[in-house]
Amino acid sequence: MKVAALSGGVGGAKLAEGLARAGAELTVIANTGDDFEHLGLSISPDIDSLVYALAGLADRERGWGRADESWSFMAALGALGGETWFNLGDADLAMHVIRSQRLAAGEPLSAVTAAILHRLGVAAKVVPATDQRLRTLVETETGPLAFQHYFVRERTAPRVTGFTFEGAGTARPAPGALEALREAERIVICPSNPYISIDPILAVAGYRDAVRDAVCVSPIIGGKAVKGPAAKMMEELGLKPSSAAVARHYRGLIRTLVIDEADAHEAAAVEAEGVRAVVVPTLMAGPEDAERLARIVLEA
Amino acid sequence: MKVAALSGGVGGAKLAEGLARAGAELTVIANTGDDFEHLGLSISPDIDSLVYALAGLADRERGWGRADESWSFMAALGALGGETWFNLGDADLAMHVIRSQRLAAGEPLSAVTAAILHRLGVAAKVVPATDQRLRTLVETETGPLAFQHYFVRERTAPRVTGFTFEGAGTARPAPGALEALREAERIVICPSNPYISIDPILAVAGYRDAVRDAVCVSPIIGGKAVKGPAAKMMEELGLKPSSAAVARHYRGLIRTLVIDEADAHEAAAVEAEGVRAVVVPTLMAGPEDAERLARIVLEA
Repeated sequence: MKVAALSGGVGGAKLAEGLARAGAELTVIANTGDDFEHLGLSISPDIDSLVYALAGLADRERGWGRADESWSFMAALGALGGETWFNLGDADLAMHVIRSQRLAAGEPLSAVTAAILHRLGVAAKVVPATDQRLRTLVETETGPLAFQHYFVRERTAPRVTGFTFEGAGTARPAPGALEALREAERIVICPSNPYISIDPILAVAGYRDAVRDAVCVSPIIGGKAVKGPAAKMMEELGLKPSSAAVARHYRGLIRTLVIDEADAHEAAAVEAEGVRAVVVPTLMAGPEDAERLARIVLEA
Repeated sequence: MKVAALSGGVGGAKLAEGLARAGAELTVIANTGDDFEHLGLSISPDIDSLVYALAGLADRERGWGRADESWSFMAALGALGGETWFNLGDADLAMHVIRSQRLAAGEPLSAVTAAILHRLGVAAKVVPATDQRLRTLVETETGPLAFQHYFVRERTAPRVTGFTFEGAGTARPAPGALEALREAERIVICPSNPYISIDPILAVAGYRDAVRDAVCVSPIIGGKAVKGPAAKMMEELGLKPSSAAVARHYRGLIRTLVIDEADAHEAAAVEAEGVRAVVVPTLMAGPEDAERLARIVLEA
């Protein structure tokens, strides 16, 4: 089955791995609003989470980066007075160095990503939301913050008031992204943060019109985000963290919301938004869980 | 004693460490003709050898790079299809990343180097030959080669016919270099390759006039270079690899050539070039050897 999925990082990457294991002919459209330049390197955290998950290189325990990672670079960087608030593993650095070098040589991010996936023997496609610059600014009570500054440096502490997606007005979907959505037999919105992982993609002209009848897996379980600040953001935006709020957020884009058994009582509220609720276990502790959840998404 | 030393990489770095241990108030003027851009990073191999030696971080067995190094980056780089002909250790990468970032931000190489030495608590100064671009091209029978391509990728196999120092015509000595030479009570030419480590420095306007009455330690012992292609180059240039050839090469710049006991028979030939020969053990197996040799250089 041809599947196109919109995804952020870790949670979305787990479902993407499950979809690939379940035999989907998969194109993942990856959020690039979290991308940033750090230490002179071009870093694309969500693309990397997807690539590592699909290549079987991801560290499942830590929840980000590569398995069997070492940290000599960070130790030496600190000793030399470099910025150490963003952790870069020694092996992970190879990804950033190669990407930075090829981008500096004029290659688009989509081509660099495709080449890396090919090299790693990954059949699934990962297409950046856009090859142009797209940067999520988190508006907070203390002023706007670049996403990684909000997320990593400030540990999501500042109270959120809104989001700005710099560059979204002029960015264009990367080659293959709209085609994948058009040809997909199933469009999936991964269990990613709606505000900072999926909305930056949808802010690029073309995506909102191309996403229809999607199946979304809710990133909220029992009023909390499995990982990351989604629930905290909902609260700060005056919403009750819930799958019903997710259903409302994606109204018009999704036909089905897969919610966790813990939230079975929310099914009626979800359906009141005009979205079908499918109640199943949604926690992905390992690739088998992810594949099982993926099959439910494909069959929904 | 105020000492200014001209140096290339490993051999020179050993003597520089010895000079610092011997209590010299040391400024090392470092060859930058080997500098190159690789994987989008600005790499200054001779500066790094000097910094690591003076900070006590150098790997003495391997002869280059840092002690206790790990190699995850290179393994991952190879798996991703990156260029692996030049080895970069995980901790060593921090140096290149910080330097590249600061150079890209417009800081001169001399300032970046000074900041790193300060951070590492090194009292000695390392001043790049120049803050401008200087690039050694090795002319060979099969055409010119960028230095690192000749040295690392081609393993010094091509037959050498000459050298070109790109940028030397317009480069200026980095701040502090000529002052150090002017104020030095002792000028030292380290046991570095005359053609590719010292000549690129001397090719920058101002240095040749500022170097006078120097003491040089010969890089040739028993007709061979302790490390690197100096002897092979001499042969290919039609010279007999010898300390006498070194004396002739530096005629007008040096007053004394320190040669190894194994070459005591060359003393007369050295003195025939108008250069005083000092015959002592010159092999530096460790920092104690280096300090002992440095004391001889300071007292010569």
